[in-house]
Amino acid sequence: MTVYTASTTAPVNIATLKYWGKRDKSLNLPTNSSISVTLSQNDLRTLTSVATSESFTEDKLWLNGKQESINSPRTKACLDDLKKLRVELEEKNSSLPKLSQWGLHIVSENNFPTAAGLASSAAGFAALVVAISKLYKLPQDMSEISKIARKGSGSACRSLFGGYVAWDMGVKENGEDSKAIEVAPINHWPNMKAAILVVSDDKKDTPSTSGMQTTVATSDLFQWRIKEVVPKRYEEMKQSILDKDFAKFGDLTMKDSNSFHSVCLDSSPPIFYLNDTSKKIIKLIHALNEQEGKIIAAYTFDAGPNAVVYYEEENESKVLGLLYKFFNKVTGWDKIDSSKLITDTDIVTDPEIYKGVSRIILTKVGDGPQDTEESLVNDQGLPK
Amino acid sequence: MTVYTASTTAPVNIATLKYWGKRDKSLNLPTNSSISVTLSQNDLRTLTSVATSESFTEDKLWLNGKQESINSPRTKACLDDLKKLRVELEEKNSSLPKLSQWGLHIVSENNFPTAAGLASSAAGFAALVVAISKLYKLPQDMSEISKIARKGSGSACRSLFGGYVAWDMGVKENGEDSKAIEVAPINHWPNMKAAILVVSDDKKDTPSTSGMQTTVATSDLFQWRIKEVVPKRYEEMKQSILDKDFAKFGDLTMKDSNSFHSVCLDSSPPIFYLNDTSKKIIKLIHALNEQEGKIIAAYTFDAGPNAVVYYEEENESKVLGLLYKFFNKVTGWDKIDSSKLITDTDIVTDPEIYKGVSRIILTKVGDGPQDTEESLVNDQGLPK
Repeated sequence: MTVYTASTTAPVNIATLKYWGKRDKSLNLPTNSSISVTLSQNDLRTLTSVATSESFTEDKLWLNGKQESINSPRTKACLDDLKKLRVELEEKNSSLPKLSQWGLHIVSENNFPTAAGLASSAAGFAALVVAISKLYKLPQDMSEISKIARKGSGSACRSLFGGYVAWDMGVKENGEDSKAIEVAPINHWPNMKAAILVVSDDKKDTPSTSGMQTTVATSDLFQWRIKEVVPKRYEEMKQSILDKDFAKFGDLTMKDSNSFHSVCLDSSPPIFYLNDTSKKIIKLIHALNEQEGKIIAAYTFDAGPNAVVYYEEENESKVLGLLYKFFNKVTGWDKIDSSKLITDTDIVTDPEIYKGVSRIILTKVGDGPQDTEESLVNDQGLPK
Repeated sequence: MTVYTASTTAPVNIATLKYWGKRDKSLNLPTNSSISVTLSQNDLRTLTSVATSESFTEDKLWLNGKQESINSPRTKACLDDLKKLRVELEEKNSSLPKLSQWGLHIVSENNFPTAAGLASSAAGFAALVVAISKLYKLPQDMSEISKIARKGSGSACRSLFGGYVAWDMGVKENGEDSKAIEVAPINHWPNMKAAILVVSDDKKDTPSTSGMQTTVATSDLFQWRIKEVVPKRYEEMKQSILDKDFAKFGDLTMKDSNSFHSVCLDSSPPIFYLNDTSKKIIKLIHALNEQEGKIIAAYTFDAGPNAVVYYEEENESKVLGLLYKFFNKVTGWDKIDSSKLITDTDIVTDPEIYKGVSRIILTKVGDGPQDTEESLVNDQGLPK
């Protein structure tokens, strides 16, 4: 009995123009377009293997070594779409095995601790959708496949490309034009680096799905953000990427992070993702840019207190120097020669700021989903 | 040699619809109208005595027992206006002593620690302007005098009335229609109470004057706030006061506090006044209202982390009960019989939240500036 398998890796992406608000909940259609940088899979990636065989009677899912329910509406929406596309192929060519009718085994692992609080659903759904589209030998391109990933988790669609990626919100009600597109490949602007400060937090964040619905329903400032602020910023940020204009890109990135957290705070009840440590990091980055007389580092915060600091490689000694000065006690510095960092600065902050950070992840712009020789399933199509 | 003296007290006011943004810096003309509740002078007030005499060659100022410079442009603007009005009187009636030509001695004291971080400039400028207008026997009404106080500190104009006060932004370039008006007197809605949680903070806040200029210049959401959000809320909040509709008043108060802090966060660089303790207090109040199934308590935060919680007297046992449960270790509870408070609730928060609060001030809606027998100056017109 033949077991068909496929594996892929998929990256994490961190938005620089934020997705916040759905105009259609079940299709994950956003109220605004967004932009992200795809991060290197050397540091953060999901590996997903899928297997199917005539003998598999049901779909099964294992995440990080544990079997999980596959019946979430979002996962089902992805599988339904992928099977529908496979059916089209099988109908055109009757010699193809009827994979669409068989059970799917999906095995997925992250190379980073989920405890880090880094949104892993984007990489997870991207890997799931890409692995199955490979297994099914689907002819659709990545933008097409991204529409399926979008139904799993909105921001997952942006993880289907490397480099600099936009999610065009589209205008159609059925969502067929709401998909990821490449703004620029990694080699257009390869020296973009990112330092992720994983910020400890005692409280449970408002989940982003319910948080964004609260904002859409209650924030008076939100309508202005999506109608006026973001559309202009979307065009400007794409251009700043094409121009490799870090000062502009960084300015827009920081402004959009703050705008997003503003409409969270303007919601009723208000939603807070930034904590006191996040705020101190924001002040540090502004102080650094002030000291340098130009924007050489840009923070952005998703729906949680973790800071992602983007910078260009040529400014690494200054940007990481500042972070090393205050966060050298946290783990994650081993890949850096700290003697080359410039820690000599007049910038001050709470000397105990490092206590609010559990680790630093040093990474950079990266590729989209990759083929891999690794597999998480054995000959029987079960987790190894 | 005759020494003329006058004394007054003036209250603190806490805005429920926030003043944030100037359209004219030197005249302190705001970008939006605002509303406040005047607080009782039993708990928070400035006492100011003024003296003048032909022998006084210059204006002098003593604040809380310490001589201070009187040459701030804001203080000078107030004194110039008041002297001009006195000149008008003296020109009409030549028998009047020429007080407008003599030096002024101004002695002012607060009955609350300035360390509490409560904006005392409103009460301070209100008392200064009212005391001098009494000394000069000016015929102008409080709304007229409020325009002079406004030049000292924008929000000071609202401290010229008791009860519920609006500051109508006006439309004229010279500011002559930008003044305080009474929305409703204290006896219209006398059972409004306020608990002020003085929140400790390690960092220096951005001064409100520079903060609001940053917001006006850089926040993309701010224009929407002043053009669309506040004008609607201004009418609704005045109506909620006239209707004594606490649920509506409280909802608008909380929303406007959050809207104000949102545009601060949307500024570049972002401005943060709420800290982690402030956020926990916000969550507590929402949890209480949720538990009660209606809004019985409403928080508001000015340009700092202190929380002011408004509630009606009939809900005191519940509102103060919740606060007492978590903040009974801080000072300020002595005027309350805590055995009458309802501390039995399922609402939870960080059990160490009280460590972020230095004291609680229990107060209520109060009167405008009051005549007083107390005087801070002696027979020679010098500080006692």
